[in-house]
Formats: sequence, structure tokens, C-alpha cells
Amino acid sequence: MKCTVCRGAALVDLRRHNAAFCGEHLSRFCRDQVTRAIEDFDMLAPGDRVLVAVSGGKDSLALWHILGELGIEADGFSIGLGIGGYSEASTECTRRFAAEHGLHLLECDLRERFGTDVPTAAAAAKRVPCSACGLSKRHLFDSAAVEGGYDVVATGHNLDDEAAVLFGNVLHWHTEYLARQAPVLPAAHGFPRKVKPLVRLAERETAAYCIVNGIDYQVEECPMSAGNRHLGYKEALADLELRSPGSKASFYFGYLREAADRFRSDGSAGEPDGPVPCGRCGAPCSGEICSFCRLLDRAGAAPLAVDGPPVAVPVRLGRSDQPVAPHPGASA
Amino acid sequence: MKCTVCRGAALVDLRRHNAAFCGEHLSRFCRDQVTRAIEDFDMLAPGDRVLVAVSGGKDSLALWHILGELGIEADGFSIGLGIGGYSEASTECTRRFAAEHGLHLLECDLRERFGTDVPTAAAAAKRVPCSACGLSKRHLFDSAAVEGGYDVVATGHNLDDEAAVLFGNVLHWHTEYLARQAPVLPAAHGFPRKVKPLVRLAERETAAYCIVNGIDYQVEECPMSAGNRHLGYKEALADLELRSPGSKASFYFGYLREAADRFRSDGSAGEPDGPVPCGRCGAPCSGEICSFCRLLDRAGAAPLAVDGPPVAVPVRLGRSDQPVAPHPGASA
Repeated sequence: MKCTVCRGAALVDLRRHNAAFCGEHLSRFCRDQVTRAIEDFDMLAPGDRVLVAVSGGKDSLALWHILGELGIEADGFSIGLGIGGYSEASTECTRRFAAEHGLHLLECDLRERFGTDVPTAAAAAKRVPCSACGLSKRHLFDSAAVEGGYDVVATGHNLDDEAAVLFGNVLHWHTEYLARQAPVLPAAHGFPRKVKPLVRLAERETAAYCIVNGIDYQVEECPMSAGNRHLGYKEALADLELRSPGSKASFYFGYLREAADRFRSDGSAGEPDGPVPCGRCGAPCSGEICSFCRLLDRAGAAPLAVDGPPVAVPVRLGRSDQPVAPHPGASA
Repeated sequence: MKCTVCRGAALVDLRRHNAAFCGEHLSRFCRDQVTRAIEDFDMLAPGDRVLVAVSGGKDSLALWHILGELGIEADGFSIGLGIGGYSEASTECTRRFAAEHGLHLLECDLRERFGTDVPTAAAAAKRVPCSACGLSKRHLFDSAAVEGGYDVVATGHNLDDEAAVLFGNVLHWHTEYLARQAPVLPAAHGFPRKVKPLVRLAERETAAYCIVNGIDYQVEECPMSAGNRHLGYKEALADLELRSPGSKASFYFGYLREAADRFRSDGSAGEPDGPVPCGRCGAPCSGEICSFCRLLDRAGAAPLAVDGPPVAVPVRLGRSDQPVAPHPGASA
């Protein structure tokens, strides 16, 4: 197998692009796809302050790396979710990457800051862990960006993620979610702009990018996500992609091109007046108390003061060959 | 396993309905579902003359049987497709069923009438066999209904069929096909009304209905359909149904309820003036010559005269215990 560009030995073949690449040209391919996504969907403007949501997995680290390669300065934001050894290892990958590349990482640890964690809060609130986790992450990303004066939050959602979410929403015709399915969510009502620059890359491609570029990422799947529906949708789409390469991209980008506008008006259903500040934390929400504060309430966690300490604290920068201090809240 | 209705021994469990049924109550369930589909979607009006498109498979024979049980008179229409032993056996099942139940069957044999068959025409026209077959069937059903003075053509498309077609159209966002995806296509432009009364029944349910009611149907899949995309979509949906019973129904009926109207206007795209009569056969079409006549042309088949013999010829009725004459054109 030869590289489509230089005819050197290829490391990876991308059937949907009818191409194969060596390490150097895979990296270029990934950068080009991110550039194209940013341009096609007007994700970033010159001078934007960018905060990357970093989990320590392949996608968010590849994203942070590619943005750097493209000359786009971005700080990272990492959340200590408290999912046992999985979270500890993820945080280590994130800290090591930031240290190696001299990048600025902000952190928020759920246990330190709120006295709870995802498993505890999900169980107390009788929510599926992925639901409690997603809710917490969205809230904390938004808060960190607003408090830190960032214009935009960039997340590592890739094509597989977005296609699987779309698939689930289409299977159930969740029109209000279909309305919000886009690579860019503009800033509105106190929420920062959110962008997904990896939307043109499959997860196999971001994994290969990390390997080629020596990025040490958390390879385990979250132990709490086993059996969740989203993974079932990913598997169904993976089968279709295997039969017919390009199916996922055709499904996702076809939706944006041919159908998304038809659902747009459903996005603001039930929020005729737009959000109001949460009575507890001040974040924009549709009721009196935002979902995150309600989750904390049910988890019996420390109340969130509006004028409490800032969400984000600077990370201790270190060298990659030095041991990284364990996540302070992870072993609590 | 006990019947949900009578607590007798159940023959089949329907997980999506959280029910199990004995033979008698499965039959009642199927009749009720057909009744509900006919009512919900205004499929039939009193006095309608109904023509059932009969392939000899489980769905079309179950449909014809259920309509009879519901007191809805319907004639059958069968096409000799010329797909070797598969078509011969299918036609035999159809004729035997009609004879046993004293029903009126009209037939059209592609070889007798047009000097070609599906494999020949598909190869000559370089079309996928399923495409040439579907095109021919739609044309001949419409013609037979119009020539015979029928108000409505009823087809045996079941929930699995409709969900799989919807799935394929959604995966590619074929908006013009999404626009036409409905359990009822009203009569328009010289086309008869078309209805799908089995749309609330899964193929497993129609198969069980046939077995319970002693209906001998063609159990083989068409040998030319192997590997077609539609079957791939069915498998993907079957996997999802297994994980989450009711997924298929939720997907299909959710589309009709939440999304179908958003695509409706795409259905007439490219046909601003409506169809005109085909210059060859007089059937409504969007060009000068209809797709079916063009298919015949490419297959080098006998030309279709506008004032030629009627498409439909009455079937020889026979008793079920008598051998049924082989399909006249099938061994040509």
C-alpha cells in the first residue's frame, strides 16, 4: 500500500476517500480537513480567543494539536469527572500533552469544586451516567468560557460522533434536537459560540493522527458508557460504512445541506422568551434553577455560589518526562 | 409462553407490543392492525374497487386474505417476471391461493406480452435487476388498475419494507423520495390511488399470519436481490430492533408524524406541469416515452401498442388439490 501523495509506504488507507497516506501526508490530510471545516462553517474569526474542551482522548488532543499546527492559539479546559482510574488516566494524558507542547490548561475537578462526581451525581439523580456527564460538561465548558473571556469553545466531536447523534435523533425524529444539530452553534443568550472543527474527520483518522504525531492519549472507552445507545448507533453506522464507504459523511453532510433548514424552527420551541439567569449560579437556563445546579442539589453536593471561586484554575505545567502529579480529587 | 388474550399456548411473541399470541389471536391482531392502518390513513372508501398486487410471497397473500376476512372484496393482479424457477413457484403459490379462496386473479406475463423478462431487460438496459423489476411492476400495476376500472392498487409493503426504504432515503437525504414516502399515494395525473394496508405489521408477523392460516407462500427470497442495499438497510434496522423493540415503528411512524410534511414540496420538483401521456403506451410519464417503454426498447422487446391487447387476462381458476398448470411464459 503506497501513499497517494508521495508513493512512499502508506500507514493507513481511507476507503471513503479512495486514498492511502504515509504519516506526513495523513497529518496534512487531517489539517486540511480541519481547515476546510473551519472555513466552510465560519467557525473562527481572526482574533477569536479559543478554549478547547480536552478529555485526554484522541479527538480532543488531536484537535488541540492541529489547531496549534494551523497557528490557531487555544487554551485547554479539562474536567475531573471522578470516574475512577479512567478519569485519572485521562487527566494525566491531558496534562502531559499540555506540558509537552507548552500549552495553557485550565482545570475543574468536580469533587474539589462541588464535592461530587459523575457516578455519584448520576446515581443520586437517577440519571443515565452519560446524561449527567454530558450535562455537567456542557455547563462547565460554557461557564469556563464566559468567565475566562473566551469567544468560542471548540470540542473534539468527530464525524462518527456527529453522524451517530444525527442517527439517533432521526430514528426518534427528535425534531428539537435535529434543529440544533450543526457544526457551529452561534453565541446566544449568554452561551459562547461552540464549534466542532473535527467534523470532517472519522475517529479512525484522528486516532491515526495521534499515533503518527506521538500523542499519548487515553485509549480506553469510558467504563460507564458500555451499552449506551449512542454506541449502538455508531456500530450500525460502522456496518453501513463497511458496506458502502462514505455513507457516514454522505448522511451527515447531506443532512446539513438538504434537511437541516427544515427543522431549524423547532430549536426554540418551549423557550419563547429565551433563557433567564439561573437563580443559583447565574448561568443562562430555561427554568428558575439550571439543570446542573439541580443535579448538584440531588447529589447533595456543595451549593454553587454565584460569586464563588472561578471555575478554572491554571494547571501546573511540567515536562513530559517528569511524573505528573495525580489528579488531586481523583483519589478522594 | 401464553397468549396475552386467552392465556392459551402462544405461538409467537411480539416484543415490540409486549405481547404473545395464539394462532387465533395473532390473526385477530393482524386484522386489527390492517383495519387501523386503513382507517388512520383513509386508504379505502366504501364501494372502492380494489386490485391487490400479488407476488405469491407472504405479504401480498396475507394482505389479500385479510382484506377478504374484513369483507373487503379485492381482485388480484400477478406479473410473470420470468426469473426462472423463482417466478414459476411464486406464480403457483398465487394461483393456488386464488383458486382455494375463489378469488379473481388477473395475470400479465412479461415474456408472453412483451417478449422479455426481468433478467433480460435489466441486463440489456444495464440496470440493477431490482430497479428494472420495480419499474416494470409499478407500470403494470398502474396500467392494469386503470384499464380494469379499479379505484385503488393495494400492495403488500409491510413495516420492515417501509422503514428500510425510509432508512435508505434518510441516509442519502433523497428529499424527492422522502416527499413521496407515505402509506397512501392519492390518485393523480392518471395514476390510481396506491395504498399499503400492511404498514403496521412487521414481516415476521405476516409470515406468522400465513403459517397460522395455512397459506402456502413463496418462502424464497428473489435470487436477483442478493446483496442489494435495501436488504442491508433491513439488517441494520433489524439489529436496532433487537436492541430496542419498537425502533422500526417509532422511526417510520415518527417520520410520518413529525417530518413528512417538511419534505412534501420536494415531491413535484422537476415536474412543474405534471405528467403527459407516453407517446408509446399512453401511460402518464414525465418525458416523451415512459420509463417502461424505454426499458422495453433497450431490451429489444416487442413494441407496446396503445390499442394492443389488454394487460390483464383472467386466470384459470382451479381447485387447490389439483395440479396447477405451469406459468405459460415461465419455461419459454
